[in-house]
Amino acid sequence: MQESLRSGAKIAVIGGGLIGTSWAALFLSFGYDVSLFEPNPDLRSSLVDKLRNPMAQVAELFPGLPAAGRLDLPATLEDTVRQAAWVQENAPERTLLKRSIYAVVEDVAPAGVTVASSTSSLVWSDLSAGMADPSRLITAHPFNPPHLMPLVELFGHDVDRVQAAAAFYRSLGRHPVFLRREAVGHIANRLSSALWREAVNMVAEGIADVDQIDAALVQGPGLRWSVVGAHMAYHLGGGAGGIGHYLDHLGPSQERRWQDLGQPRLDAATRDKLVEGIAAEAGGRSIADLEAERDAGLIAVQRALHRRRA
Amino acid sequence: MQESLRSGAKIAVIGGGLIGTSWAALFLSFGYDVSLFEPNPDLRSSLVDKLRNPMAQVAELFPGLPAAGRLDLPATLEDTVRQAAWVQENAPERTLLKRSIYAVVEDVAPAGVTVASSTSSLVWSDLSAGMADPSRLITAHPFNPPHLMPLVELFGHDVDRVQAAAAFYRSLGRHPVFLRREAVGHIANRLSSALWREAVNMVAEGIADVDQIDAALVQGPGLRWSVVGAHMAYHLGGGAGGIGHYLDHLGPSQERRWQDLGQPRLDAATRDKLVEGIAAEAGGRSIADLEAERDAGLIAVQRALHRRRA
Repeated sequence: MQESLRSGAKIAVIGGGLIGTSWAALFLSFGYDVSLFEPNPDLRSSLVDKLRNPMAQVAELFPGLPAAGRLDLPATLEDTVRQAAWVQENAPERTLLKRSIYAVVEDVAPAGVTVASSTSSLVWSDLSAGMADPSRLITAHPFNPPHLMPLVELFGHDVDRVQAAAAFYRSLGRHPVFLRREAVGHIANRLSSALWREAVNMVAEGIADVDQIDAALVQGPGLRWSVVGAHMAYHLGGGAGGIGHYLDHLGPSQERRWQDLGQPRLDAATRDKLVEGIAAEAGGRSIADLEAERDAGLIAVQRALHRRRA
Repeated sequence: MQESLRSGAKIAVIGGGLIGTSWAALFLSFGYDVSLFEPNPDLRSSLVDKLRNPMAQVAELFPGLPAAGRLDLPATLEDTVRQAAWVQENAPERTLLKRSIYAVVEDVAPAGVTVASSTSSLVWSDLSAGMADPSRLITAHPFNPPHLMPLVELFGHDVDRVQAAAAFYRSLGRHPVFLRREAVGHIANRLSSALWREAVNMVAEGIADVDQIDAALVQGPGLRWSVVGAHMAYHLGGGAGGIGHYLDHLGPSQERRWQDLGQPRLDAATRDKLVEGIAAEAGGRSIADLEAERDAGLIAVQRALHRRRA
């Protein structure tokens, strides 16, 4: 276990893609110095520019933050982690590549420093295999874009280290959740994947168009789930008897509904329907336009929720 | 087709349960006179009280509404619909009961008036069978609680009538969506059901506790889906190539992930885990407390989104 992090400590962020730069923007905004490693020199030179917008967004979401930390962009992984008090790894999703990075960290970084992997699709047992001290690794999966989404899903075998990670992420305005055991896709991507399967099925089956399905989600369950979870929603839907009453009376009809859900394939016909449906929904807006709208919406919703909880 | 509704027209709301009173509160708040029919006299006498809180919530969500309409509580279905310019039916989910109501409406209500059913689990073809003019029926499924949730899912066989319904609901601050063909659970409850199946699976499999799954949803995909839909989220997750690029490169891994999702049963062991998990998440808060928190959150989030779109 390492001692707790204090503002001014140096954080190593490995990987200058979407997730790495988003984490770096968050750490810098909360006053930490960041060493950001991107092996491609062309990408590396663009990173200062790429950090500007996410850092401005974090400032909008959390008014009154201290002065930002300092950024450096070392040319080697070794120099990136040598003085790190925390390592956030965001390398491509290849097990052997990540293992080779952890070997360098164990060799060079200060003893006992936590290595937190942002992996979305790999699991702790595979990633930690081969480490001298597997307990140093945790999976800490953020939700894209990490600087705007509170969720961080945590798993590891060293309970104290996982708890310290939770405290660290909470200090950055994140909301950590804990897995009891590792699972591909952790929690949130399993939920997303399950929902999207039925969203794809309804397009494939001709029940509704892409834009209507998205609108139904945003104006219905999505809005509700920004405030209460799915289990709790069934508790509140059960009347005075809550979820026990719901399960006793409507459990069998829910099981029948599950049987009626689809098992679509992402074949060429479905692919074309999805691509055409998204083009209709986007209505000429570029991906950059759509991302800017999403981000402004995420900031507005969270500021409203922050005010309510304050 | 009926002419479009103007404020001051009389709306018949059939059924004084949760959904009926919520619709009545919305219609009254937007200036419509409402005849609300509840066959149980004991329940009927409590309805004036039950409308107070939802009407106050609508006023909070939509500042500057006109004076509320007048409420009357007829003792018979016939008197309820006799002068109706719109009928919103919220009877219990029994096909024969609903059909018997539509027979009275066709007999007594002004010719051509639309009958909109709030049904969540029945479909248009079953409900309309037996009507003299099935084209008068539409399904117009709200999301609970209807006075706070924008979504209304529409289906019917008379295109002009469905469009007129959409215009009417839009004038009440609702967001109508259109099904291409009828489906049990319409769109939103199919999505909810698909997501909840995996949420239950993770509890049954011991991957995570109820409260952690709910928190992961609220702080991750739920928050995101309050702003962008599931299809659009995959479009934005595909980088510059959008959803086409995503499907070409990650479609197969998504299909593998679907295979890894669970098919839980709502058996006694799972029921107990869910009930215990909800008790832990609620932490002593009553259902009324939790509903009040939910409603305040829904109002705060929507006011923020209204301001942004204004």
